[in-house]
Formats: sequence, structure tokens, C-alpha cells
Amino acid sequence: MSPLILLSFFCVILVATSQGSDVVHRIQPLQIHPLRLQSDSACLSWRVAVEAHNIIDWTVAPEGCEGYIGNYMLGGQYRKDSKVVADEAYEYAKSLKIRDIGKDVWVFDVDETVLSHVPFYALHGFGAEPVNYIEFFEWLAKGKAPALPESLKLYNKLLSLGIKVAFLTGRGEELRNITATNLKNAGYHTWEKLLLRGPGSENTTAVVYKSAERRKLEEEGYRIVGNSGDQWSDITGTNVGERTFKLPNPMYYVK
Amino acid sequence: MSPLILLSFFCVILVATSQGSDVVHRIQPLQIHPLRLQSDSACLSWRVAVEAHNIIDWTVAPEGCEGYIGNYMLGGQYRKDSKVVADEAYEYAKSLKIRDIGKDVWVFDVDETVLSHVPFYALHGFGAEPVNYIEFFEWLAKGKAPALPESLKLYNKLLSLGIKVAFLTGRGEELRNITATNLKNAGYHTWEKLLLRGPGSENTTAVVYKSAERRKLEEEGYRIVGNSGDQWSDITGTNVGERTFKLPNPMYYVK
Repeated sequence: MSPLILLSFFCVILVATSQGSDVVHRIQPLQIHPLRLQSDSACLSWRVAVEAHNIIDWTVAPEGCEGYIGNYMLGGQYRKDSKVVADEAYEYAKSLKIRDIGKDVWVFDVDETVLSHVPFYALHGFGAEPVNYIEFFEWLAKGKAPALPESLKLYNKLLSLGIKVAFLTGRGEELRNITATNLKNAGYHTWEKLLLRGPGSENTTAVVYKSAERRKLEEEGYRIVGNSGDQWSDITGTNVGERTFKLPNPMYYVK
Repeated sequence: MSPLILLSFFCVILVATSQGSDVVHRIQPLQIHPLRLQSDSACLSWRVAVEAHNIIDWTVAPEGCEGYIGNYMLGGQYRKDSKVVADEAYEYAKSLKIRDIGKDVWVFDVDETVLSHVPFYALHGFGAEPVNYIEFFEWLAKGKAPALPESLKLYNKLLSLGIKVAFLTGRGEELRNITATNLKNAGYHTWEKLLLRGPGSENTTAVVYKSAERRKLEEEGYRIVGNSGDQWSDITGTNVGERTFKLPNPMYYVK
């Protein structure tokens, strides 16, 4: 890592940290753990293995990869990787014959697919330290998650093609209003469906829950022409859609 | 790319080139196409999108990525990525209860999964230029493909666990003897099955052909505990096995 990148990275962390409500507790001397550092190439291998669905069921990123992941998320490569996936999705979407009956839908997951929690994770080790879920839900409840810019562009392009959008999220129904407001404020101004976990589906895995929701969509006459998610559990199971797209996420894993 | 890496890379190409049988034709002044060069970060985004099954049906790697891919394949990252996948496969395999009836099998694809064609592709743009299939089959027919070292280690460890090995390849039956000899010379000394494309399956896609072969294995009473391949067509379709592993390959795509 060049000194310049390293410096920029620490500055971003400092800025992100200083934006928290509990500034006093968070600004601490930077902890250096040289024995835990892994080489960037080892962390890259881990990241690619996560993206290719080889490493599964992980809870935190490998020790020593926090710097690598932070640099990946904030240093531009995450955005570039996301753009390649979005561009490929759009090229595919353009090739489709979209019917004018309003029943051709693109399913998007929400978190780390269309909205970003990097502002939260930047304060919590970018997935390389266990997340405090109380703090995470406090962040979620603020409804301030920004749009992922490449996903927002894709969303608008898909709408222009006449494709409807269905958001399918693992968030619970209690977050419907917060989620809808956050989506609208982030630029996602319309949707055909906003599907959240209702009573009875709280204890199923994402794969099972999302497969069932997609099946219902198809039973209602929708054709799922595309399906984008940052988790393999978004795009595997049944009724996955005619083509799936895996957005990058080295910060957390959802079964 | 640092000058040292660039120099090492060109030296490897030169050595690889000078090992060819038609040295006179191949040693040419290096062609520089600065306008076609893509940044390493763009080629990395492309490579990750290939590994995550976002970019499909591609014929050659993007123009300008030849240097990046060559460096990836020969510079150590390919080996590191392969090791992470093999290690993950072994960790999974150790967790299995293997029966002593000799019916628990691990399916391996052959090319770029257990045997490497890097010696050939290093002379032909690492997949960034169209392959001459006559030349490729001449190379295959030599039966000199080396083992992929991390795959060979995994193979031996799986055998030690009591898991049987089935090789399932898109190569045709006419290559059975060459393939068997190549596998043995490369260190793969035993197998339960060596499955090649027979009459009637020449014109099906790899996904269809391999799904059918795996179904036959299961009908014969085998349990496919794992399945490793460098192509998504090795590990998708039906009867894919209890867990699949995608080995890296930015050089070519098989449908």
C-alpha cells in the first residue's frame, strides 16, 4: 500500500469516525497489529473466493484483512467492480424483449445492493470485526443509507427499458416505512413491489425466504428477467430469474 | 505494473516462446499497443466478474488485459487463489462422514482444474487473443500438460480421506489414452471413473453433458460429495454434488 493511499485511508476513517454521535469513545490511537497483517494478495484471494462462492458461511473477514478491505471499499476498486457488474446487467437487459404489460420485473436486494452501509462498516472494521447488531439496527433505523451509485444508474436504465423493479429484502416488515423513505431519498423513486420479511418467515434462511417470495411473484404472473444481489443467498435457491448478478461484498455474509 | 514485474513477465514470455517447436515464427518484436492497454484495476474487475459468474459467454479476454492476465497466471496470484479454493475444499471434505463402501466421490474436471494449459496459453496471449484450435489440439495430443499443484495436493488428501475420484471432462473419447497417460504422468495415479464425451454427446453444451454424466453416477449409487471445476458449466446444471468449488480461470470460457 503506498503511503499516499494509506494516508487517504486513515483520513477517511478519521472523518467517518468523527461523524459518529459518540465521537469521544471512538477516536482512539490507531491500533497496529503487525503480526496479524496479511498480505494484500492473501486478502485478494480470500475476496475472490468469497465472490465466487467458494468460501461460505463466514462470520468475519480474515484477521489482518481490515486494511485491505477498507482500501478496497473506499479506494475505488469496489466502485469499479460494481460498475462492471451493472454494465453487464444493462447489456443483458437491452437484449431482452420487454412486454408492455408491466409484468417483466428485475429483483433487487436492498442492503449492499442498492443501499450502502459503508458509512456504518467504516466505523466497525469493514466486516473484519464482529458487528454489534444493536448498533447496526440503530444505524438502519436512521434511514440514511446512501445509494450505491452504479446500482442507481442501472435502476434508472432498467426503468427506461420498461422493466419494473421489485425490491426483495431480508429486512423485517417493521422497517417498511424507514426502508421506503430511505429508498426514495436515495433516488429510487418508484417500485412495483417492496417485499420485506413478514410474520412466519423470520426464522427461515434468506435462500428459503427469498425463493418463496420470488415464487409468489411468478405465481402472480410476473416474469423475473433479472436478479441482482450482493449475497449468493439472493441469487440461488429456486425461481432465481432468467439471469443473476452477484454484486461485490467482502464485509459480511448472509446465509 | 512495476518495471521489475514487467521485465520478469516479458522474460517468462520469451522463455515460454523459445520452448515452442516453431521458435523462428514466434519470436517477434514485442508489439506495444498503448491505446489498448487497460488499467490493472479494470482487468481485475473483469476477472472478478468472470469468477463470480457475472460475465458469461465471453470468447476472449478484454483487449489490453493480456499483460494483466499473464502476470496473474505466472506471477503467483493464480497459485494463491487456487490454494485458497483447494484449502477450503479440504476443510469441507474433512467435515464429511465418508462411508467405507467406496461410493463417495469427488468430481474433478480435467483442463485447468487438475491439468494446466498455461504452457500453451502463455504462447497465445493468455486468452486475450483467439485460440487456434488446431494448434491447441496438437498441444493436447502431446499429453504433456503439467499438474496444477494445489489440485494435486487436494486430490491426494481426498484419497487419504477415503473419497474416490471421478474425472469428468469435455474431452472426447478419442483422447482417452492420452488423457489417462497425461493424468498418471502428472501424478494422478488412480481414479474411480474417467468420463469423456462419447458418441451422441458431442453437440451438447458442457452443462447438459456434465449434468447427464453426474446423474448417471448417482444412478449407479455414487454420492457426489464435492465437485471442482474451473468453469461454471462444471458446477451448475443438475446433480452438481453436495458442494461445488470454482477454480480460477481468466483464459477461456466454456458454455
